[in-house]
Parts: sequence; structure tokens; C-alpha cells
Amino acid sequence: MLATTIDSQFDQRLKELAEWIAIPSISALPQHRADVYRAGEWAASYLRNLGFPTVEFTETEGLPVIYAEHCPHAGKPTVLFYGHVDVQPADPLELWQSPPFEATIRDGKLFARGANDDKGQCMVWLGALQALKTIHGELPVNVKVVLESEEEIGGHSIEAYVKAHAERLKCDAVIVCDTSMYSPQHPSICTSLRGIVYTEVEVKGGKTDMHSGHYGGVAPNPLHALTLLISRLKGEDGHINIPELQAAIPAVTDDEKAFWAADPVNFNAGLYEEMAVTQLYGENEHSPYARTGLRPTLEVHGIVGGFMGEGSKTVIPAEAKAKISLRLPPGMAPQPALDGLKKAIEQHMPKGYAHTVKTLGMGAGMNTDWNNPYMLKARKAMATVYGKEPAPMRMGGSVPVCAVFDSVLKSPVLLVGFGLPDDDLHAPNEKYSLDQLKKGMNTMALLLQAIAE
Amino acid sequence: MLATTIDSQFDQRLKELAEWIAIPSISALPQHRADVYRAGEWAASYLRNLGFPTVEFTETEGLPVIYAEHCPHAGKPTVLFYGHVDVQPADPLELWQSPPFEATIRDGKLFARGANDDKGQCMVWLGALQALKTIHGELPVNVKVVLESEEEIGGHSIEAYVKAHAERLKCDAVIVCDTSMYSPQHPSICTSLRGIVYTEVEVKGGKTDMHSGHYGGVAPNPLHALTLLISRLKGEDGHINIPELQAAIPAVTDDEKAFWAADPVNFNAGLYEEMAVTQLYGENEHSPYARTGLRPTLEVHGIVGGFMGEGSKTVIPAEAKAKISLRLPPGMAPQPALDGLKKAIEQHMPKGYAHTVKTLGMGAGMNTDWNNPYMLKARKAMATVYGKEPAPMRMGGSVPVCAVFDSVLKSPVLLVGFGLPDDDLHAPNEKYSLDQLKKGMNTMALLLQAIAE
Repeated sequence: MLATTIDSQFDQRLKELAEWIAIPSISALPQHRADVYRAGEWAASYLRNLGFPTVEFTETEGLPVIYAEHCPHAGKPTVLFYGHVDVQPADPLELWQSPPFEATIRDGKLFARGANDDKGQCMVWLGALQALKTIHGELPVNVKVVLESEEEIGGHSIEAYVKAHAERLKCDAVIVCDTSMYSPQHPSICTSLRGIVYTEVEVKGGKTDMHSGHYGGVAPNPLHALTLLISRLKGEDGHINIPELQAAIPAVTDDEKAFWAADPVNFNAGLYEEMAVTQLYGENEHSPYARTGLRPTLEVHGIVGGFMGEGSKTVIPAEAKAKISLRLPPGMAPQPALDGLKKAIEQHMPKGYAHTVKTLGMGAGMNTDWNNPYMLKARKAMATVYGKEPAPMRMGGSVPVCAVFDSVLKSPVLLVGFGLPDDDLHAPNEKYSLDQLKKGMNTMALLLQAIAE
Repeated sequence: MLATTIDSQFDQRLKELAEWIAIPSISALPQHRADVYRAGEWAASYLRNLGFPTVEFTETEGLPVIYAEHCPHAGKPTVLFYGHVDVQPADPLELWQSPPFEATIRDGKLFARGANDDKGQCMVWLGALQALKTIHGELPVNVKVVLESEEEIGGHSIEAYVKAHAERLKCDAVIVCDTSMYSPQHPSICTSLRGIVYTEVEVKGGKTDMHSGHYGGVAPNPLHALTLLISRLKGEDGHINIPELQAAIPAVTDDEKAFWAADPVNFNAGLYEEMAVTQLYGENEHSPYARTGLRPTLEVHGIVGGFMGEGSKTVIPAEAKAKISLRLPPGMAPQPALDGLKKAIEQHMPKGYAHTVKTLGMGAGMNTDWNNPYMLKARKAMATVYGKEPAPMRMGGSVPVCAVFDSVLKSPVLLVGFGLPDDDLHAPNEKYSLDQLKKGMNTMALLLQAIAE
């Protein structure tokens, strides 16, 4: 019944999606500002037509937030859908096989800017809502929707909005359809994100730059101090000497470990290929899955000081700075990680150098329990549609809005996405598999029905 | 006799020096090109008047070289004087207490650009030659003179000239009056210079810049590799892990060690003050004298790669470069030092990183035996004038032309200079002590007489 309904409505959904895609809502380009608004208005209008009695278009300091609410079922759970209406620029245009803002189907895939990210993925749950409405005459659960317009430019309006409207956005689960799965044969749900702490460590030496001929041998060299410090914070073996980070690594289930060991999706081989390396670097006693998704990282992103131009200059700089970030084990709060880093810097800084640690950014990660009741429902829905139990997938990056949902709304965040690793997000010929779109609608509809029960 | 002659001629010498100083021969500024030529012509004319039968003004690829020769004594030694006619720019003009190109006497010191560097110091030996000519009716030894015009801009014309005219410049000793002594109470002669090797070490990681969220934990990070490498090349204790450099450190006499230990010139305290530090850095088991003049250094001058702008970017760079220099123990040739560095880099580079070592510059140092017969004569002359045996003084920098004299002419290079540490070379209110100028003329005249004997 559900599958046939989704099937029968699918062409209509594609038509609607093509209409939305045709609006070049590129948030990065000022000349497309009006298009970003139009794409938001398209979504607002779509939700209104879907029967949402409350649909609001809210201006922010940046680009708008759209909020919709349809909560007629007093005793039933409420889900909050999150998505974004803005897209990446389409350059370089000459590499597109069909115009970026004309949804074009080839080989069972929809090609366009936004075909996946995030208009296509939003259509997953919009399509599910449409089918459920057709079948039940109304949505089976309470539904809230929040859409932003600054995701592709890292805007902060959505975080401010969520924090300012926490009571209104209250829900039992947040569903985000903006991620990928390993493959159609190996469905997966994202279960965690790493947090981040980004610092600039400034080290001071003498009162002024010095000449290495005159002072070399007795002079402090802040650049050398930084190399000593960083080599002590993380060794060639990849081990990070910050006990607080090590202690925060969450346990994983035996199932997840078995998946890592079996590596049916060739994740490990993929890393070699993507980086074009002949070895992996770091903690080789741990699985690459754990190292990219679960375990902390410490990376140096840049070292500034002394002479950085072409050629040679024999300067011993008076000061130098290193940009050092941590990725945090999912679930670890940023502040204790920063404290741990500062303590380690204090401990490992060579003697006699004054230093300061400036915090340039902090963001929490997120960890959704694989056995949370809502996660169990999502897993079951996906298993039903794909014929295979999904694997947990850990993402090593940080998605600030998810952390905000997690920490402000205190609801489980389900990152149930249907993209595939080769969908070329942010690149020419971005695409979305029509089969994945349809399976996504089915999964999402089953999930909502399960939540309603 | 000598002293009274020098005394009686001193005002005339000052007049001549003021004339030379009045020509603003700033080699760094194109608008003063003609002045550089005029200052050279002034010197050529002065030497002609002094009785040099051969005086040549030679064009180079850059600014001219002046060569003069007066070698009438078949059986006697030949000395070669080196100096430069160009000066540093005078900016900032507003900080001068008297016009920079008007030689002005205040408190027994001559103030002007070039009062010391190097016109005043050239007048030391020109004055000595004048006095000796007056007393003996002719110069007591064979004298060659080579003056360049690019010293203040690091030009290479003089090196090319010396190499091209090695036979002509043949001599028994080279005398350079372009350095300072510790103090009038602690006369000194410079006995060595350190050589230099300047490299850029490039390290490659993945094929492209990577995102630390996705790849952090398995990705190569060339910046991290460089910190590991550099921390292994030189530890916090200042020890450099390049055995070739350690093996090349020359022995020093017990006298020199005693001088270092007594430190009558407060060299060590001066370092604290000049650098504004509360401790010295590096090999604290060795004397600061040895560490700044005798022992090798390894310094990192800049690290380039990743993100060096303001703010934060979570990039793991595909490549990074470090500018690393060595100062070489006096007397060590640059090539074996470079070979040693390359071997050490090979050994200490973290596994799996491709790297290249680019040589950006190499220059030999110099080591003049403190007991060389000509050095002994210089020491004796200075001791006679100052009433105190001079101390050996080691300079940690490199003066390429001295290394060329040393290696091409294979003659001992005597760096007998009469500047003082506070003469403000290259700065506003450059000065030269008239007492030092006169003592210099006396020392130089005694030295030439001793060589003649």
C-alpha cells in the first residue's frame, strides 16, 4: 500500500523537485540572494499545500529560516525535520553534462545542483509525508519542520534560531536527511559526529626578530619550540598525549566492531585511493573506521612566523603561532577537551617560552545511541526497505546544527540520509539516485508510521 | 715617532675622511648610483696620490671594484687590504642629531653614515700607510688594495672578481678592517666566521589538501611530519643530531677558554639584555661564546603550508615546507655539512612521507689560526698600542668575501677592526671613536712594520 502509493506519486514528486531545483538558490553569491528567498518561499508554499497550518518565513541576521508545524495529535510523538534550501555554486559550468539548474534524468539518476544536497534529500521526507497523507488522510504523527538558507556558507542563523525557539521546536526526535549511506547494498545510518576545538597557540621568544648568525646557539626560537611542542602532543604513532580525550572515547558495540573488521564497503581501501597514499598514518593499531569517526584527532593546520616568502632569510622570529585543532570523541563536550589541550600544552611546552592559547572555534559533536528507541525504529524501517539491517556510520566531521539540536532540544538526532558516496556533492554533475530517493521515501514513511504506533 | 707622526697627520686624515663621507654612496638606492661611483673614484684618486702606481677602476655586472697595487719590494711580504666604499641608506633621517653625510665630531666621536662602516675603518689603514710613507719615505711592504661597492647589498661582484683575479691578488696576508672589538679595555681580533647552509625541506602527503573531519586520524599531515623531523634534528637541549657537524668543531686554546670563563666583557650578560630573556636557550653545558661563534646551529626560519591566514580552516595540507639553516663550525666546508643534514633528514623523517631538500644558499666560514705568524704580529701590534693582549673573538655570522679570500687566495685573513659594539652601524647616528681610529692607525702601522721585518 505504502510502496504503491509512493510509486504512483513519484513522477509528481520529481516534477515538484525539478521546480525547486530550477531556483538557483546559491547562498554564497550575493546576486542569488533573491533566489535563496524564492527557494524558501517555494518550500513554505509546499508545506502550506501539504496541510501545515503554521508556516512562517523568518528573517534573520543572514538568510531566512522557514518554520512549519502540524501538530494535531495531542498524545502522539512529535518529529522535527531539518533541511536547507540553499545550494552550492555551480562552477565550473563547463564541466556539467546538462545545465545545473535543469533537473535531468540519466541512467536512473537525477542530475542537478541540489539534486541531492539538500533539495533531493528534503524531497525524501516531503514525499513520505505526501504518501502518508494520501493513505491516512492526515499525517500520522505531529510534525515540525525547520529549514535554513545558510548551510552552504556556514551561517549561524539557524543555531541562533534554535536556541531562541527551543520551546517551540521541542520534539521527540529530530530527523535530518542530509547525509549518505555506504551503498545501497550496505545501508547505514549516521550515529555520531565528532566535536571540534580550534586553537591558535602563540609562542614568544626574544624581544625582537634576531639574526641567526649572531644569536643562533643561545636565542629562543618560537618556531622550534612549536615543533617540539607539537611533536610531544602527538607522536609519529598518532597517539595524542591528552588523557582527557582518550578517556572520552565511547564504547562501540560488538556488531559495529564486526562491521569494521569485515569492512564490506571497502572503506579502508577507499581511503588509500581518495588520499592517493600507500599507507595510512597514525594509530595503526586501531581500525580506520575508529580513527576517522570515533577517536580524537590533533592536527596542525598552519604555522605562522619568521620568514615565509620565497628565498632565504636567516631570521630567528620573536614569536610564532600554530593553528592546532582537536576533533573530539562523539559526545565529548568541547570545554573539557580545550582544558585538556591547554594542560598538555602547559606540560609539553619547552621551558622558558611564554605562550598563550587562543580559542578560534569550538563545536560539540553528537552521539545518538544506536539502541535509542527512535534509532531502533529508523533501523527497522531501513532494514525493511533495503532487506538488510543498516550499519552504524560515524562521521568524523562536525555539523554544528546537529550538535545544537542534540544539546538544546535534548532529543535524539537521526541522521538518516540516502545519498551515495559518489553523488558529487558540491561538484559538477551532482546527482541523486532515483532508486535511493524512492527507497528513502519508503524508509521515512515506515519510520513515521512506526513512531506513530 | 710613529705615534707622533700619526698624531700630527690626524686632522688631515679627518678632513679627508669627511670629504669621502660627504659622498652619499648608498648602494641600495638607484638614485645614488653615481655617488657610489664617485666614492670609488675618490678612493682611487686617494691611492694614486699615496703613490700606488697601479690603480684600476673595474666595471662589474653590478657596481665597480677598485684595485690598486704598490709592490716595489721583491723580497718582502705582500698584504692585501679589503674594504668597501658603499654605505647603508640613512633613513630614518629625522633620528639623526647631525646630517648623516656631514662628518660631525661630538664627545670625541665622529658621527656620520660611513663614519665607521667602512669609510672610517678604511681610513685606519690609509692613515697607517700615510704615516709609514712619511717616516720611511715609502711603504715598508708590498701592498695591494681591493675595494668593492656592493657590500651593503650583498652583491657577488667581489667574489667573482677575486676568483677571476686570484693570481693578481696573491698575497701573504689579507687584512680586513670592517669588524668591531669587545671594548677599548678588551681589545680583540676576529679569528673565525661560521659558514652557512640554507635549505628548504619540502614534504608531501596526500594528493590534495584534505578535511580534518573526514580524514583526520588516517591522513598524512606534512606539517606534523615537519614538526617531528625538526624536533628530532635538534632537541630542547640544543643538541643537533648531525654527527658531521659535531665532528667539525675546532679545538680552542686554553687561553680562549679562560677568557670565556672569566667573561671580562660581560658578553653573557649582554646576550640576556639584547634578547630580553631570562635564560639562554640551547646547549647550556657549553659557553655562550662557543655557542654563538664556534659550535654549529640549526634553526628553522619559517614553515609554509596549510592555512596561514587569520581565523580557522580545518585543512590537512598536501604539502608543507620548512626553511632550515645550519651555521657551520669555522673551517667546515658547506658541502659535507649539507650532506650531513640530508642524511639526518633521511634518517629522521617520519615514515611514508616523500620529501626533497632544496639548497637555497651555501657559504663557507673561515678560521684564522690564532697562532698563525701574521696573526701573532697583529696580536703583538695591538697589544703594544692597547697595553693589553687582545682576545680572540669569534663571529657567528658569515662574511662571504672573507671565505673567498680564505679559500681562493689561501692566505690568512686578519679581521682587525676597531669598531665598538655601540657604534650603531646601519642605524641613525652611526659613529666611530676618534681614539679608536687613532689607535687603529697605530696598530695597523706597527703591524705593517712587523710584517716588513
